[in-house]
Amino acid sequence: MRITPEIRNILDWYESDNPGTKANLARILMEGRLGGTGKLVILPVDQGFEHGPARSFAPNPPAYDPRYHFELAVEAGLSAYAAPLGMIEAGAASYAGAIPTILKVNSSNSLATTKDQAVTGSVRDALRLGCAAIGFTIYPGSEYAFAQMEELRELSEEAKAVGLAVVVWSYPRGPLLDKAGETALDICAYAAHMAALSGAHIIKVKPPTDVVSLDAAKKTYESQHIDRSTLAKRVRHVVQSAFAGRRIVVFSGGEAKSLEGLYEEVRGLRDGGANGSIIGRNTFQRPKEEALAMLDRIIAIYQGKD
Amino acid sequence: MRITPEIRNILDWYESDNPGTKANLARILMEGRLGGTGKLVILPVDQGFEHGPARSFAPNPPAYDPRYHFELAVEAGLSAYAAPLGMIEAGAASYAGAIPTILKVNSSNSLATTKDQAVTGSVRDALRLGCAAIGFTIYPGSEYAFAQMEELRELSEEAKAVGLAVVVWSYPRGPLLDKAGETALDICAYAAHMAALSGAHIIKVKPPTDVVSLDAAKKTYESQHIDRSTLAKRVRHVVQSAFAGRRIVVFSGGEAKSLEGLYEEVRGLRDGGANGSIIGRNTFQRPKEEALAMLDRIIAIYQGKD
Amino acid sequence: MRITPEIRNILDWYESDNPGTKANLARILMEGRLGGTGKLVILPVDQGFEHGPARSFAPNPPAYDPRYHFELAVEAGLSAYAAPLGMIEAGAASYAGAIPTILKVNSSNSLATTKDQAVTGSVRDALRLGCAAIGFTIYPGSEYAFAQMEELRELSEEAKAVGLAVVVWSYPRGPLLDKAGETALDICAYAAHMAALSGAHIIKVKPPTDVVSLDAAKKTYESQHIDRSTLAKRVRHVVQSAFAGRRIVVFSGGEAKSLEGLYEEVRGLRDGGANGSIIGRNTFQRPKEEALAMLDRIIAIYQGKD
Amino acid sequence: MRITPEIRNILDWYESDNPGTKANLARILMEGRLGGTGKLVILPVDQGFEHGPARSFAPNPPAYDPRYHFELAVEAGLSAYAAPLGMIEAGAASYAGAIPTILKVNSSNSLATTKDQAVTGSVRDALRLGCAAIGFTIYPGSEYAFAQMEELRELSEEAKAVGLAVVVWSYPRGPLLDKAGETALDICAYAAHMAALSGAHIIKVKPPTDVVSLDAAKKTYESQHIDRSTLAKRVRHVVQSAFAGRRIVVFSGGEAKSLEGLYEEVRGLRDGGANGSIIGRNTFQRPKEEALAMLDRIIAIYQGKD
Amino acid sequence: MRITPEIRNILDWYESDNPGTKANLARILMEGRLGGTGKLVILPVDQGFEHGPARSFAPNPPAYDPRYHFELAVEAGLSAYAAPLGMIEAGAASYAGAIPTILKVNSSNSLATTKDQAVTGSVRDALRLGCAAIGFTIYPGSEYAFAQMEELRELSEEAKAVGLAVVVWSYPRGPLLDKAGETALDICAYAAHMAALSGAHIIKVKPPTDVVSLDAAKKTYESQHIDRSTLAKRVRHVVQSAFAGRRIVVFSGGEAKSLEGLYEEVRGLRDGGANGSIIGRNTFQRPKEEALAMLDRIIAIYQGKD
Repeated sequence: MRITPEIRNILDWYESDNPGTKANLARILMEGRLGGTGKLVILPVDQGFEHGPARSFAPNPPAYDPRYHFELAVEAGLSAYAAPLGMIEAGAASYAGAIPTILKVNSSNSLATTKDQAVTGSVRDALRLGCAAIGFTIYPGSEYAFAQMEELRELSEEAKAVGLAVVVWSYPRGPLLDKAGETALDICAYAAHMAALSGAHIIKVKPPTDVVSLDAAKKTYESQHIDRSTLAKRVRHVVQSAFAGRRIVVFSGGEAKSLEGLYEEVRGLRDGGANGSIIGRNTFQRPKEEALAMLDRIIAIYQGKD
Repeated sequence: MRITPEIRNILDWYESDNPGTKANLARILMEGRLGGTGKLVILPVDQGFEHGPARSFAPNPPAYDPRYHFELAVEAGLSAYAAPLGMIEAGAASYAGAIPTILKVNSSNSLATTKDQAVTGSVRDALRLGCAAIGFTIYPGSEYAFAQMEELRELSEEAKAVGLAVVVWSYPRGPLLDKAGETALDICAYAAHMAALSGAHIIKVKPPTDVVSLDAAKKTYESQHIDRSTLAKRVRHVVQSAFAGRRIVVFSGGEAKSLEGLYEEVRGLRDGGANGSIIGRNTFQRPKEEALAMLDRIIAIYQGKD
Repeated sequence: MRITPEIRNILDWYESDNPGTKANLARILMEGRLGGTGKLVILPVDQGFEHGPARSFAPNPPAYDPRYHFELAVEAGLSAYAAPLGMIEAGAASYAGAIPTILKVNSSNSLATTKDQAVTGSVRDALRLGCAAIGFTIYPGSEYAFAQMEELRELSEEAKAVGLAVVVWSYPRGPLLDKAGETALDICAYAAHMAALSGAHIIKVKPPTDVVSLDAAKKTYESQHIDRSTLAKRVRHVVQSAFAGRRIVVFSGGEAKSLEGLYEEVRGLRDGGANGSIIGRNTFQRPKEEALAMLDRIIAIYQGKD
Repeated sequence: MRITPEIRNILDWYESDNPGTKANLARILMEGRLGGTGKLVILPVDQGFEHGPARSFAPNPPAYDPRYHFELAVEAGLSAYAAPLGMIEAGAASYAGAIPTILKVNSSNSLATTKDQAVTGSVRDALRLGCAAIGFTIYPGSEYAFAQMEELRELSEEAKAVGLAVVVWSYPRGPLLDKAGETALDICAYAAHMAALSGAHIIKVKPPTDVVSLDAAKKTYESQHIDRSTLAKRVRHVVQSAFAGRRIVVFSGGEAKSLEGLYEEVRGLRDGGANGSIIGRNTFQRPKEEALAMLDRIIAIYQGKD
Repeated sequence: MRITPEIRNILDWYESDNPGTKANLARILMEGRLGGTGKLVILPVDQGFEHGPARSFAPNPPAYDPRYHFELAVEAGLSAYAAPLGMIEAGAASYAGAIPTILKVNSSNSLATTKDQAVTGSVRDALRLGCAAIGFTIYPGSEYAFAQMEELRELSEEAKAVGLAVVVWSYPRGPLLDKAGETALDICAYAAHMAALSGAHIIKVKPPTDVVSLDAAKKTYESQHIDRSTLAKRVRHVVQSAFAGRRIVVFSGGEAKSLEGLYEEVRGLRDGGANGSIIGRNTFQRPKEEALAMLDRIIAIYQGKD
């Protein structure tokens, strides 16, 4: 399978990585209907851990079965599927080779007393399960951010040595951030930058609003005339903050909204230069046919056809 | 011993596990009077650690002797016997090959200053003692939940590599949960789901009440019309939460009650699709003959004869 | 499954072994139609390595498929199935829990330039494949015997620490032994004794003839009136040489002969106190129905019914 | 990428392997123009080590450049590319993700004083270079065969644990074998069988002639009427010897011959049920356009179009 | 210090190496008076180990002092200095940062009973001494060649992981090679190729004569019209054999000869595309001023000024 020039160009960004890691990035970037374009759509299913099974799967009961998500990702022609250990174990053999998988190696839950996460998977798990990458969440701003970054560092070093890629969910939260702050433009850009600085190959952040949260940052955003008037412009700033666009940045689905609102948001992401979307609840909480239709539209948007 | 189609089907759920782990699961599932049916009854004796010897064994003094429990499990035709290190060491040679054993590798106690557990057994212990599985308790919701999940992850990876099965006691507790919350339907389902996500082969939870505890979950349970009117329906929801029933889920004995109440509860578990019961105090705190009679009835219920 | 007194008695011989090893011995001894009697019939399929595939399987082509042998062992109600790595890997998941397996961890072949064997499996392989034991061949008398005994020692120590049993094929050969010597009574007895001294739990030797091979031994056999007039008496001497019968001794099928000759031989083994037979080519080179009929007779002989 | 039923069926043969190994086998089997058919053509370039650079590459000087071979494999739509460490290192980043690679981890050379090989690559090398498998040569029949099998065992266990596949070149040679013996039917079948017993996932042997080499085997080949009248029938016997066709068997190019002779041979391999060809010198010693035309024909033959 | 395009191009050859290894290669390639040209001259001082101190240093007694060689290399503006452990330890602090060093990690000596080498340095030594590379000698053709390649493999994997470069002295010798054979064109080309296949970054071979040594190779050299009429043409063939010139190849000084003869040889190396010279005895056995003058001429030749 010849790698397209677009993907060769992206792989060149990761110049310090070994060929194993590049090959796994290539597998993700060449997979599915967006394969070869440099755009990607990833299906993440860690909602069960975060919010419990009923809140995650009751709206579409077939989704209780882990195989449903593998099937959905393959059928929709997505780029990769990300989930915690048990979810991957429950389908990794049946779907061996069918879709690149990302082992989400830490997870939080709604019963937790602290805004931290538990490490629930290992690099060795990722290898034995045939995963292309590990996924790890950091909460910049939380009391646990430093400890999380240190866990990430260890797992990431180990993963890179054996040719795996590293995907970082960078979700700011903590005492200095109110709800609006968590998705503020300066904070999203900062979150993407910290993930890049921590050595992430693929960075997941939330779509930024036009808020600027940190007082210390406001002056810069004003004086430098950083345009935050449209989502596309804000996304461009976040992507720029990830090494001038030389790291893959994907965005989560954002706030609940109508389908048209979602498509409009994806157009904004695309126009801002995002590499793609990582979209969970919006996907698996709909009946499969609706989910496939929605993903078809999102893919069409990234293909520039919509 | 030919494996029955029911058990072959269950083993297929564990598609990422090596044949060693599958063989140990098969040993448990083919053992005893329920062997081959896909149902199982496990005898757990970790009460001594949890509540002290007198509270555990004084009601039936022969139970002070660890061999009593091996004998009881064998005589009753149960599926497996689970206990901490010392209890297993005290009978493992006498009962070698007579009953699959589960080494409970962490334990709490009533003198503890924290709601945590100590790791008191190892995978190597499990191998030298001929155990089929390790058992591990997590307390989702406690301040120690993340640390426990990380201990589980390490022990579990090690156990799976050498062909052992992993049984997880998932017992929610902690600051966000009141007494009613610990057995609430949403919490039990969540506990089962988190154990499954952590890679458990067999999951032990408590029978759920019709309470929904988390505010964030109430809307879902209402809007999705999750039926919690009978124990059977609630159990079905918990089982569904364990990968659409593709993980073995067993239930503890629940609140103290009359024998008839217990049988009625077991009927509910059975009708809800539970894989079985794990029942300790109710068993070993009775005189042996009564315990055997009771287990006989429970087995008959799982056989659909009662 | 209650262990029978006969098996409890046998397990007591292995008083220095941990419960894991005892449990695995119990699994073998309680399995199949001879389960619980202290007698056993094992199916070994290492002929392909030793003599090549056509000489092994062409007489009964279904036997080219590794699953055939698992199936045969289960269907005939045998005690265990022994084979090299690839053969076990090819069926261990399908037959997980259905029959105790013995991973033959060294093997020779007909193209070899030396009368040695290669180590082709490990204790870790045995664990991940769910085996009850490892099997190892030594050639007492060969130039490689000391090296083989040292390999056995290492593998055996490792196996015992993780609760596996150790089966030793003790096949004398080498410069001091002519063809007749290899099955001479003194040599078979010596071979069994060396295996026992090396720490074997189960010892496989060939049925002894009435020859006494070593000059140094002849005087003793004469002066001590060691009766070698019948196979039963010779077998009794071999069994006695394995720690006064306190180690399990099984015998291979011996020279090609008629079925009636084979049954007569098995009667001799039984009457001499052998624990059983380990019988390969005679089994899998016949059409399955004939093999099952033959094994049925052999089992009947060990049950004392024939 | 949905795995085809043909490949799913093949993956089921490897029931004891983890999903990582299955995924890597799937990658090879789904790659290139034969992807999904269960047939495969592999390009091996270890000739430089075996015969020196001039004898390997002077007939087609662009082939001195390691990138040439990656390019050729991709352009021809082959299934995988196999080479020693330096060759893989020289192109693994440029072709990351473009073609599954097999790291040949041992190699011989024409200056060697013994018929052995040196281990020149590791499992860790394979991971950092993004390889799908390791490749290892054994010489059954040589004085080094046992040592090689033991090296294979160690590397193989390590590779399987981290989700790599294992390809074994099984090339009989040694004091008991004359030139005709090395490709005799009984010897090729035996070589394939020993590789399977050693735990290989993919087995490479030479096309068998109608010679039967071992005296001990001649009687069987006669009495069992093993048909060796055509290449197809001989190949069928070799494939049968690899676990009744439940291991992937590929054949090398055999003796130098005309192109038509080569195509005729490939038709024989195909008709005999071979999984494919592994064809080096015949490929890279021709000008690229000729090589592509030749590979196009070979692929067409495996597609049943020629 | 901006890396020149020539060096950037060379670093691109090493596409699977990490930036640490690339940086160390860059340090050597940018050092001294040839820095940035892609040419290099290395001073190796392992003569003392090979031939004893008097034969090595008595002709120029200041050379007994290890600091002399550091000083000479710096003063002459060379690219790197290579020596065994003790020699490096004796000057590494004084000349820290002054000249890239190559720790020669194996060595032979004239008292040796076998044509092997001892490993006398480690990767950790190289790090603590600030070396840019390790150096290792293999003797293709010797009885120890396979063992040496395996030692190289281990050291090389370790060195690359910590960002060191690997220099391989590939010196054919052994039973199949007479004196003429050791420097025959086919053998030198083969030696360079085997070093490249083993993963070397820099390869040292001897200047080839016009002899073709291996009978099996003669036909190719004739039929392919490989021109061996001048040293330049022969060198070109050797360089081509090192991955079409995509590995750095340096040549030793060859047979004793006049200064003019030496310069003429270096012109041949240069014209054939060699990357440079590695020249020991000819250097340090002269008075320093003479050595500096000689090196000045050699550098001028590589600069194309002579």
